[in-house]
Amino acid sequence: MASALRVLGIDPGLTRCGVGVVDVRADRSATLVHVGVVRSATDAPIEQRLASIAAGIRAVIADHGPDVVAVERVFAQQNRSTVMGTAQASGIALLLAAEHGLPAATHTPSEVKAAITGYGNAEKLQVQTMVARVLRLDALPQPADAADALALALCHAWRRGPAAGGAVAALTPAQRAWAAAEKATRR
Amino acid sequence: MASALRVLGIDPGLTRCGVGVVDVRADRSATLVHVGVVRSATDAPIEQRLASIAAGIRAVIADHGPDVVAVERVFAQQNRSTVMGTAQASGIALLLAAEHGLPAATHTPSEVKAAITGYGNAEKLQVQTMVARVLRLDALPQPADAADALALALCHAWRRGPAAGGAVAALTPAQRAWAAAEKATRR
Repeated sequence: MASALRVLGIDPGLTRCGVGVVDVRADRSATLVHVGVVRSATDAPIEQRLASIAAGIRAVIADHGPDVVAVERVFAQQNRSTVMGTAQASGIALLLAAEHGLPAATHTPSEVKAAITGYGNAEKLQVQTMVARVLRLDALPQPADAADALALALCHAWRRGPAAGGAVAALTPAQRAWAAAEKATRR
Repeated sequence: MASALRVLGIDPGLTRCGVGVVDVRADRSATLVHVGVVRSATDAPIEQRLASIAAGIRAVIADHGPDVVAVERVFAQQNRSTVMGTAQASGIALLLAAEHGLPAATHTPSEVKAAITGYGNAEKLQVQTMVARVLRLDALPQPADAADALALALCHAWRRGPAAGGAVAALTPAQRAWAAAEKATRR
């Protein structure tokens, strides 16, 4: 089997934080490793909610050992009432990547849609359908946060390569092997 | 000497994160314990920047053992270009409080100004002047982020008490002693 890049995609959120792990090979084929949602109690103090999210993400990293972490980029313009909690959760996702020695990257929703469907304004359902097809799932991944996390992970693997890896100072052995294999495929 | 509540105030930021530790007694008198700024390199990847901020806050908690952490509340409306980084840093500050078993609280800039000067629209200089006076400093605390962190810490101690502590499920022994002493003073 060809060397695969294991990507943890995180759709940050305070109430529901989507997490998806996929193995992506140089020929762009992909396998589902894990998908789920990390939740926090809406009536808990904010610091406890963030600690719950952190514990859930740490467990996924420990259980599945990703090579890289991809986090959806949050904008101030998005859904105002929850955007601050989403930004806080995204900060924690990125911090945990750094503290596990993993490279991290952020991608915008448009980038994810374009990478998955070829169209930056694609409908959510189109993205989910394509994710299910690529991963050979029998049903659409549920809930939406989990589906978004899988799309983000696929997007990250598909968008990167020698050029997209520029921001990553040090590649892991798995990433180097993947980049070399991908380059070979392109010839 | 009366029992004091040791408050860590954090003015969250990605480039400069203000940290201030004060001991506040039940008679509202206060002593400076530590003030500083945790920085991150603006050219580092976001996950490394957040890790630098986390390491700096952890060091302050380890060195000074606060009873409680007060973090400035971030709004989506604030300074757009940096608000997401500020929100991410605030999430990390709150997470670190939880992971050290410390209660945390957030206060808005208006609440801080009102608590320190009696006026929610006070100028920055008025707040800094009052902070310097209360802590008997020879000069205004610098830079502004550090001054804001001290103001936040004082605000937290002064605003709380039996009523304001409602959101804190479990008080530390020092907080209980402080609340009791404050109650005695009020009689």
